[in-house]
Amino acid sequence: MAAYRQQKNCEADGLFVVEGVKMAGEALRSGWTIRTLCTTSEALTSLRDVDIRAGELYQASPEQIDRLSSLRTPQGIWMLVERERPLEASQSRSDDFILMLDGIQDPGNMGTILRTADWFGVRMVICSQGTVSCYNPKVVQASMGAIFRTRVIYCDLAETITQYAAEGYTAYGAMLDGDDAFASPKVKPSLLVIGNEGHGISEEVSAVVGHRLTIPNIGGTCESLNAAVATAILMSEFYR
Amino acid sequence: MAAYRQQKNCEADGLFVVEGVKMAGEALRSGWTIRTLCTTSEALTSLRDVDIRAGELYQASPEQIDRLSSLRTPQGIWMLVERERPLEASQSRSDDFILMLDGIQDPGNMGTILRTADWFGVRMVICSQGTVSCYNPKVVQASMGAIFRTRVIYCDLAETITQYAAEGYTAYGAMLDGDDAFASPKVKPSLLVIGNEGHGISEEVSAVVGHRLTIPNIGGTCESLNAAVATAILMSEFYR
Repeated sequence: MAAYRQQKNCEADGLFVVEGVKMAGEALRSGWTIRTLCTTSEALTSLRDVDIRAGELYQASPEQIDRLSSLRTPQGIWMLVERERPLEASQSRSDDFILMLDGIQDPGNMGTILRTADWFGVRMVICSQGTVSCYNPKVVQASMGAIFRTRVIYCDLAETITQYAAEGYTAYGAMLDGDDAFASPKVKPSLLVIGNEGHGISEEVSAVVGHRLTIPNIGGTCESLNAAVATAILMSEFYR
Repeated sequence: MAAYRQQKNCEADGLFVVEGVKMAGEALRSGWTIRTLCTTSEALTSLRDVDIRAGELYQASPEQIDRLSSLRTPQGIWMLVERERPLEASQSRSDDFILMLDGIQDPGNMGTILRTADWFGVRMVICSQGTVSCYNPKVVQASMGAIFRTRVIYCDLAETITQYAAEGYTAYGAMLDGDDAFASPKVKPSLLVIGNEGHGISEEVSAVVGHRLTIPNIGGTCESLNAAVATAILMSEFYR
C-alpha cells in the first residue's frame, strides 16, 4: 500500500487516495468502488452511520496510518478508491452552464473550485491537459466530497469550446481586460473559462472565447484575485 | 533573528515576518517600516526597481534564508516589518461597507479574504478576538500584499456591531438559514459578518445581526462553501 503514496502508482492502477473521516464518509456514500480501507479502531466508530463496503478492510494503528498519510494531521482513515472512467466532453451538452479550467495548477484552488461548482450544481468541469489532476490528494481533500459528484474531464480545451459554440453555447472567459462581469448580460447556455493562476487563459483558448469578463477592480491597488475566488464570483454571476 | 521564527517573539516585539520577492516588493513600496531585510544576492537583483530602505540589511546565503523561512520553497528574501499601531474600530465609520470576521481560523482563508477585500477597495476589516492573527506568516503570504493596504483590527465584535448599527449601518451576516443573498436588497452603509469555518457566526454576534444572508445551494449536495469563497461571493453582492 505504501507504494500508493506516490501518485504515479495510483494513476497506473486507476486508483486515488482519500483520507479522513469526513471524506471517507463521502466516499462510502458515493457509490464509487472502494478498493482498500485502512482505519484505526477509533476512526471506525465515527463511520458507524455509514454502510462500510470495501474490497479490503484493514484495522491499523495510528502510526501505520501516519506512515501512509500525506496530511499534516492524519485523521485515522486512509483509503484507495477506484477512479471512474472519464465521460466524454460531449455528455454534458444538455447542461446550461459548463465550467472550464485552462491550466489551474494549485491543488487547493482546484479542490475549492470543484467544491464551489458542486454547490452551484455544476455537473461537469472540463479541463485542459495542463490542469492539475483532480485525483491529486490535496485536490480531493479541498473538494470536500465534490470529487464524487462533479465529473472532471481532461481534453483539448480550444477544440471542445469550438464544438460547444457550434451547438449554441456562448463562451465567456475570465480576463483582466474584459467587460464588467457584473454588468454584462449572460446568455445561456453558457460556458465559462478560467485560466492559470499566473498566466491566465492560453492564447489558443483565448482565440475561441467570444466574451471577455473582468471582475471590477474597485480598490485598484490589488493586482489579482485568487483563482478560486475569481471563479466563485464569476460562477455566482451565472447563477444569481 | 532565528528567534523570530516563533510568532510569539514577533508579537512581543511588534514585528512580523514577510518573505519572498513579490511580498518584499509590496513591503518596500508600502511605506511600512522595515526593521531587517535578509536577501540572497540573486533575490536582491529582483528588487532593483524598488527603493531599498531597511534598518538592517544582510546579504545571506540561500541556506541561511532556508533556515529562517517557514515557506516550503523559500524565495531568497526574509524580512522583519514593524506592525502598525492598530486603528480604532470607529475610524472606518465613513466607509459605506465594512467587512467583519467572527472567528476565521485558517490562515490561507484569512489571507485570501484580505486579498479579496483589497480588490474591492475595503479599507478596514474588523475581527473578533478569536480570529487568526493577520500577522501570521501564512496570512501575510496569502494576502498578496493586501496586509499593507487593508487595516485589520481586533475587538469585541458584538459591541462594535451595536455601535455601527446605532450610527445607521445595516448589519448582514452569512448564515445557512437566511434569505437568498442574490435576491435580498442591500442597504448602505452596510456591514457584513462572516463566521468561523466550522461553526459559523457565534451566538452573541448572531443576536445583533439583523439580516441573515444565504448563498443559494443550487446543487443541494454540498454541505458548505469554503469561507474565503463565501466571503467573496457575498462581498461581490455589495459591490456589483
